[in-house]
Amino acid sequence: MKSRAAVAFAAGQPLQVVEIDVAPPRAGEVLVRITASGVCHTDAFTLSGDDPEGLFPAVLGHEGGGIVVEVGAGVTSVKPGDHVIPLYTAECRQCKFCLSGKTNLCQAVRATQGRGLMPDGSSRFSYNGQPIHHYMGCSTFSEYTVVPEVSLAVINPAAKLEKVCLLGCGVTTGIGAVHNTAKVQAGDSVAVFGLGGIGLAVIQGAVQARAGRIVAIDTNPGKFELARSMGATDCLNPADYDKPIQDVVVELTDGGVDFSFECIGNVHVMRAALECCHKGWGESVIIGVAGAGQEISTRPFQLVTGRVWRGSAFGGVKGRTQLPGMVEQAMRGEIDLDPFITHELPLERINEAFALMHEGKSIRTVIRF
Amino acid sequence: MKSRAAVAFAAGQPLQVVEIDVAPPRAGEVLVRITASGVCHTDAFTLSGDDPEGLFPAVLGHEGGGIVVEVGAGVTSVKPGDHVIPLYTAECRQCKFCLSGKTNLCQAVRATQGRGLMPDGSSRFSYNGQPIHHYMGCSTFSEYTVVPEVSLAVINPAAKLEKVCLLGCGVTTGIGAVHNTAKVQAGDSVAVFGLGGIGLAVIQGAVQARAGRIVAIDTNPGKFELARSMGATDCLNPADYDKPIQDVVVELTDGGVDFSFECIGNVHVMRAALECCHKGWGESVIIGVAGAGQEISTRPFQLVTGRVWRGSAFGGVKGRTQLPGMVEQAMRGEIDLDPFITHELPLERINEAFALMHEGKSIRTVIRF
Repeated sequence: MKSRAAVAFAAGQPLQVVEIDVAPPRAGEVLVRITASGVCHTDAFTLSGDDPEGLFPAVLGHEGGGIVVEVGAGVTSVKPGDHVIPLYTAECRQCKFCLSGKTNLCQAVRATQGRGLMPDGSSRFSYNGQPIHHYMGCSTFSEYTVVPEVSLAVINPAAKLEKVCLLGCGVTTGIGAVHNTAKVQAGDSVAVFGLGGIGLAVIQGAVQARAGRIVAIDTNPGKFELARSMGATDCLNPADYDKPIQDVVVELTDGGVDFSFECIGNVHVMRAALECCHKGWGESVIIGVAGAGQEISTRPFQLVTGRVWRGSAFGGVKGRTQLPGMVEQAMRGEIDLDPFITHELPLERINEAFALMHEGKSIRTVIRF
Repeated sequence: MKSRAAVAFAAGQPLQVVEIDVAPPRAGEVLVRITASGVCHTDAFTLSGDDPEGLFPAVLGHEGGGIVVEVGAGVTSVKPGDHVIPLYTAECRQCKFCLSGKTNLCQAVRATQGRGLMPDGSSRFSYNGQPIHHYMGCSTFSEYTVVPEVSLAVINPAAKLEKVCLLGCGVTTGIGAVHNTAKVQAGDSVAVFGLGGIGLAVIQGAVQARAGRIVAIDTNPGKFELARSMGATDCLNPADYDKPIQDVVVELTDGGVDFSFECIGNVHVMRAALECCHKGWGESVIIGVAGAGQEISTRPFQLVTGRVWRGSAFGGVKGRTQLPGMVEQAMRGEIDLDPFITHELPLERINEAFALMHEGKSIRTVIRF
């Protein structure tokens, strides 16, 4: 079938909105009509060419919501008409990882997903007869996309897809990291490095967990008002201090925070985030994705004296199991998605969404189909 | 009073066994007659001059057992005749750290201990009228030593001090790291890097926890027989492989181990120990103490994909609370100290103990007074 899609034909070039061909879903696959998709920094990272795993041409987009159109052979957990959120972290419920009970990092479709292909090793997308890669198992910048059954969370059809699509990535990543990875408890102190969508979601998660102090850190003080309105108790701009920001946080919080979150992808900030944790028990969670080949470092004494360094992907959330409940939370207002949606644009203007993000003017632009 | 003691007068020089003066215990302090003390790599590290916090002259030694001789004003938890193990990690039960329930890193006497002094800022040791530093709050290479009340574990007087003195450091550090820090469960796979006293204690702890596979790694295959006899299921010499040892362990264990322990103090090995952990949930515990200024590093992707990096000091053990129970375990044979004690020497021959250790010929030499 034909589908309007924003195609990344080459690194560093604007997306081109064209009509592509989408092949029918094969066994274990599902055809979804996307109605809305957020534009995330990871899309921009891949489009820039800095992502060593980036493949072109490709249909980007991984933060979408849509409606099932058709299912392939053997698909039993979704049916046409179901409202769904595509998952870049699948949940097969059968692999060693899913069965471990310890991680959300299902490996069922990982290898082919990483090569921009469906699990059978081929693509459902083409343009003028030439194959186009899938992206993160989602490719939500296309009106019609094909995804594996195990990569779909079925959600309440009463939820507004143009809002809850944000639970497909950033908001879930931030909130989930607080609850699933860090397990913040009432009264705990928290430091958040980077006040983009993920950082703000961490703040929201920390408020839900009834954290005591929530210290928000960013080099752009223009973000502080929103951070405060969402629950940050202190806002720090590292440029305002003549000592390392970790020292500032340690002094401010009487020895350091219980939990810190790096929401940028900067390896130097990752170090600061670890070192602002409280001796004896402070834990730092890396959420941001660093550039290829970059490394984190610190003195091992930081760990031997009780700090813990960990990371989080998709907030530790098992998508098919947990995302439907998070959609319900959003419908009840327990997760507030409105502060994240700063812009809406039609698919044809998707390059403006990237420009707004680069200029720091948006948190999320939601693309409407 | 007069006391025979092995004094480190200068870095890099042999200890000198001389008669020093020991002043009476002041308020909150306890005079202990040491009857036995292990010689640990940390003593050698400080004596070498590589320890940036090393102070001279000093009475080294921190793995001892003894009997209380006299208590200072206000001391209530120990009395003359009590059998005790001095603690380099105090437990005051009143500071923020002790009350947190999250760490054993009591800070009550840390600052003065780090300066080689008693909590009031002075020393009880002197030689020919010149003060001599305390060491790690213990100074067990002296027949008589003075330690803070909060730095003493009172143990069953029926325990053999020349054996259970090893619970003052190495054995407790290794076993404790398995149970308190890593919390190894039945069936878990474990990798142990470095088969000195700590590494062997980790193996013993892993056996107690009924770990499944226990992979022991050392560049000296001469240590493998003992490791196997203590419970290692696989022994690896990195020199036998033409790829990084972490890759070898990952292949051997179908994706990596559930827990790894670095028991050397080598920052490169610390990286290997992290990277041999299983994606999604593997946790690496740093026990070894690295040289001054050295740093650990890895790609943050290692953490974002679910590995956890932590450290352990004194095995996470709260000395006054937990050590008496570990002594009972040793008396019941649930902790086997015999494999660790390879040599015994009188105080006068203590330098031979350092030589044996440097030559890799001993695990622990116990000094008898």
